[in-house]
Formats: sequence, C-alpha cells, structure tokens
Amino acid sequence: MSSSTSDATENTRVALLQFKVTESKEENHVTANSYLQKAHENGASLTVLPEIWNSPYATSAFGEYAEALPSIDYQYNPDDSDDLGASPSAKLLFEAAIKYKMYIIGGSIPETENDAIYNTCLCISPSGKLIGKHRKVHLFDIDVPGGIRFKESDTLSPGDTMTAFPAGAFGNVGVGICYDIRFPEYAMLLTKKHECNLIVYPGAFNMTTGPAHWELLQKARAVDNQCFILTASPARTEEPEVEGKYKHYTAWGHSTAVNPWGEVVGTCGSGEDIVVVDLEIGDVGKMRQGIPIALQKRTDMYNLVDGTK
Amino acid sequence: MSSSTSDATENTRVALLQFKVTESKEENHVTANSYLQKAHENGASLTVLPEIWNSPYATSAFGEYAEALPSIDYQYNPDDSDDLGASPSAKLLFEAAIKYKMYIIGGSIPETENDAIYNTCLCISPSGKLIGKHRKVHLFDIDVPGGIRFKESDTLSPGDTMTAFPAGAFGNVGVGICYDIRFPEYAMLLTKKHECNLIVYPGAFNMTTGPAHWELLQKARAVDNQCFILTASPARTEEPEVEGKYKHYTAWGHSTAVNPWGEVVGTCGSGEDIVVVDLEIGDVGKMRQGIPIALQKRTDMYNLVDGTK
Repeated sequence: MSSSTSDATENTRVALLQFKVTESKEENHVTANSYLQKAHENGASLTVLPEIWNSPYATSAFGEYAEALPSIDYQYNPDDSDDLGASPSAKLLFEAAIKYKMYIIGGSIPETENDAIYNTCLCISPSGKLIGKHRKVHLFDIDVPGGIRFKESDTLSPGDTMTAFPAGAFGNVGVGICYDIRFPEYAMLLTKKHECNLIVYPGAFNMTTGPAHWELLQKARAVDNQCFILTASPARTEEPEVEGKYKHYTAWGHSTAVNPWGEVVGTCGSGEDIVVVDLEIGDVGKMRQGIPIALQKRTDMYNLVDGTK
Repeated sequence: MSSSTSDATENTRVALLQFKVTESKEENHVTANSYLQKAHENGASLTVLPEIWNSPYATSAFGEYAEALPSIDYQYNPDDSDDLGASPSAKLLFEAAIKYKMYIIGGSIPETENDAIYNTCLCISPSGKLIGKHRKVHLFDIDVPGGIRFKESDTLSPGDTMTAFPAGAFGNVGVGICYDIRFPEYAMLLTKKHECNLIVYPGAFNMTTGPAHWELLQKARAVDNQCFILTASPARTEEPEVEGKYKHYTAWGHSTAVNPWGEVVGTCGSGEDIVVVDLEIGDVGKMRQGIPIALQKRTDMYNLVDGTK
C-alpha cells in the first residue's frame, strides 16, 4: 500500500483502487469487491475505481460488456433482489456504497442505451443514490507516430454533460474520464460553475502518454483550478504470451492524488495497489485566497462560456 | 552555458538571457548589451530578455525607471541619433535587433504613458520594427501565508491586449509576462486565434512559487496548447547585507524552454546564464496531428470567447 495517511477526524479520506482487469467480467467483479472492501478497511469515505474496470479496454469489447445503467437521481433498493439485476457491475457499486457507507466514484464501465455505447462513470452516495453520471465527453482518438494509436469513437458515443455534485465533507466534486483531462476548459468550467474542491478522473493512460503527461496533466489541472485532482487507473498487465479475445492494452497505472498546490500527496507504481490519502480540503480555500486567480481573470479579454445550458 | 544545441540550418535558434539586475540602470544596460552580444555569438535568431531588466523589481521603483515607449508598428531609425533618445532601454533593444539581425522579445521594462505605469514587453523584428507590444494583463497581486506577498497594482496598471505576431521561421509567436502564465485562457486564446508555435513569458517567479510552479506552468501551457514555451528570468541576487534604496526581490531564475510534448529542452540554474536551444518547430504540427485536441474541443459544451474585439 502506498499511502499518505493520518487519523482522519474530518472524514475526508479517499482510496484510489488500482487493480488488474481481465477478459472475465466475473473475475473483475470479484477483484473490484475485494478492493472496495480494502478501501473500507482503510477507512476511506470516498473511493475511486479505474476507467473501464469490468471489461477489457478495447473498442471491440465494449459492446459485449456494456450494461444498461440507471439515470441520475436513481435510488438503489437493497431490499429488492431484482433491482439492477440486469446490470451486475452497477449493482456491485451500489451495494458497496451502502454497505461501506462511502461515496463511490465508480471508475467507468461501458453503458448501452438505445443503439449507443458510452464510457460511463457512476457516482453513488453512501445511501445508494446516483448523484452523478458522467459519460466521457472527449473520446480518445489519437495517433502518435511511433507511439499509440487508439480510436474510441470506433464504437463509443460521447456524453454531453458536465458532472459535479456535493459530497459531504469533500464539498463539490467534479468528474471527468481520462482523455477529458487534456481539455483545460472542462475542468475550468467545472470549477467556475460548481467551485469544485476536487476533480476526479478515472483514467487509463498508456505507455506513450503515461510517462510523458499523466502526472503533469493532474498537476496542471490542480494548480490551474486550485483544487485536488484524483486519478485511478487499471493496474498494468503485460502483453500476454497467448493473445486473448481482444487486443491487449497496457495501462500506465500510477493512480495519484495531487493537492491544490500541485504536489503529489499519494501515488503508486504500475502494479495492483490502493492509494489512501486524507485530503486537507481546507488547502483549497487557502490556495484560492493566497493566489486569487479566479478573481483576477480578465473576463473583458477572454471568457469561458457554458454551452451546456 | 546550459544549452541544447546543434548546427542550426533552419534558423530557429533561440537564446534566453538570464542576467543580474541592479539598482543602476546604466549597469543594467551594460549587462543587457553584453548578453545580447553573447546571444548573437551563439547564433540566436530570437532572443528573450528577463522581466523588468532595467529596474529593480519593486513597485516603488517602477515610476523612477519607467520610459515612454513607442507604439506598435513603430520603425526605429538608426541614422537619427535622437531617435528614442529619451528611452534608452528601448533604444538599446532596437539597436541590438538591427545590429544582430535577430528578433528580440525584450523582457519587460516599466513604461509610462499619461499618468499610468505598465509592465511592458517590446517585441522587435530584425529590421527594427516594433511588431509586438505586450503590457502585462494580469498583475501580480498575491499573498501566500508564510510565503510571498506582492502587489504590483500598487503602482502598475494592466494592459488589455493579446500579443502575437509572425516571426519568420518561428511562425506565430505569442507573448505574456510572468503572472500571465497562471491564466490558461490567455494562452489558449492566443493559440486559438493565432495558432502560435511558441509563447514567450519573460518572468520573475520567486522563492515560494518558483520551486513549486515555474516549470510546471510552462509544461502545462506547452502540453495544453501543443506549442513551445520560453521563459527568461533575472538571475538570482541574494539579499544584500546593506539594504538598497528599494526592497530586494529574490528571483527564482531557471530560464527554460519547453517543447510541445512538455519536455524541458533547455534550462539553467539560478545564476547568470544563457540558454541556447534550436527549436524543432515541426514538433508543433506533429503534436497537433497526433493528439488533435484543438479539433476535439467540445465547443457545444464550453467555449472560450474573445472579449478583446
């Protein structure tokens, strides 16, 4: 366990779950349950899962692993054994949130709705309510010569909403997914509209962009928005000797927490791990007061406008 | 000399001048001339001076050291010995640009106009034309508990224009000054409007924010805008044993060049130095093609609008 912990009195302990994802959805469920329990044992009150944790990260796999997911404000009923029965990955998250009385930023799972598939993060309160539902808004379509080529839009559709919600002692929490972190406007608009204290990005960077940009982008978003940034990645799995059903994707790992001053306050390597950190939420206000950039924006020269309304 | 050089065939060699600034304007002129000559000897075709290089960096000093400066598109006449005679710091820059046939991003000097003082960067072509004039638009007013307190607005007025211009083989160059780098919108609007290949920030970070954010912000602006970022700082001078006329300011130094991938391609320490780097301008296009974030912005969800028109 890589952690930076102290006795939490303010209940702002977070856990970032970095576990291996396989081609077996059932195996992924067992792993996720095990890590959620570890988060609880470590006293976390907000837990983040990795991007695409119930399915291989392969565009051709998303359809097979996708589930229908509930709509925002949905309330899970643990007494109804049929509730979410057709959506086992979602059900797992709701049950854990209630059982462990924690906020869950549920990484992401492929979601099916009508004929579209989305890369979707379910955000669940300790009472089992869906308080946030983020569909990745910027799809990961890149082609770096000599590096990585990937095209999520081959099978995925993008979301079109900003995602933020209040989460108890954490204050307002914003959510993006992976590639969303490359777009400063998204984080800035979250901060401007919702005054988020933290922005969470489940993500699966790769061996090209991971070493170059994963930590840098988290620090950049943290300092530009003067808030905490949390990320959770799948653990790295090496290319198998016998190719599986789907093309292998090698994740960078390195799930990380960065504070508003841009410092890494918790991180880990590429293997399976859990990062546990007590967030000093008061640092957000101190940073915003000391270097008051939000008040010093030159909106007469430039202005970031919200198009989602 | 800290440098990353090769034989420039494309004429995109830059020099970042990091020299000590004193309370003697004349001494500062001698130093600046000496470093401009060094830039020439190193084959630079674009040279950057530090923020406030002719005056102590103290709000109470700016009025005394300020000069009236020419307007944009002004053409210096080297045959007229009276030209800019009342503005010796400006004259020095124009003469060097012509003598050494180089673009000069003239760091900044205090500018007086009517009853206002600005923190102003003169950008001069090799033929002695004023192709850019940037007045710092975000004034450095911060108060970090246990760290630094500074309030430029005590004596300075802010500018209100974006600054960008074409500069030969470099393509379009954008300019901000120091604290401007904390505002992602400014750099993003420069990129969006002018497709800048590089953005130059003369700057004088301090011993609180320097180690924490100087390099990070340069890398952030580079990766977010997929362009080169250049900075030039005054060299660090330690607190004198006998206090001078003006309150001493300890600059962080570390003048740096970052490429569009977010890598430091040239830097130095805190002392007097000159950083010489050949910019691979083609890296801008490669980065923008490989990870095409400019084309993937969700302008239906957010939009950065230009208020300067």
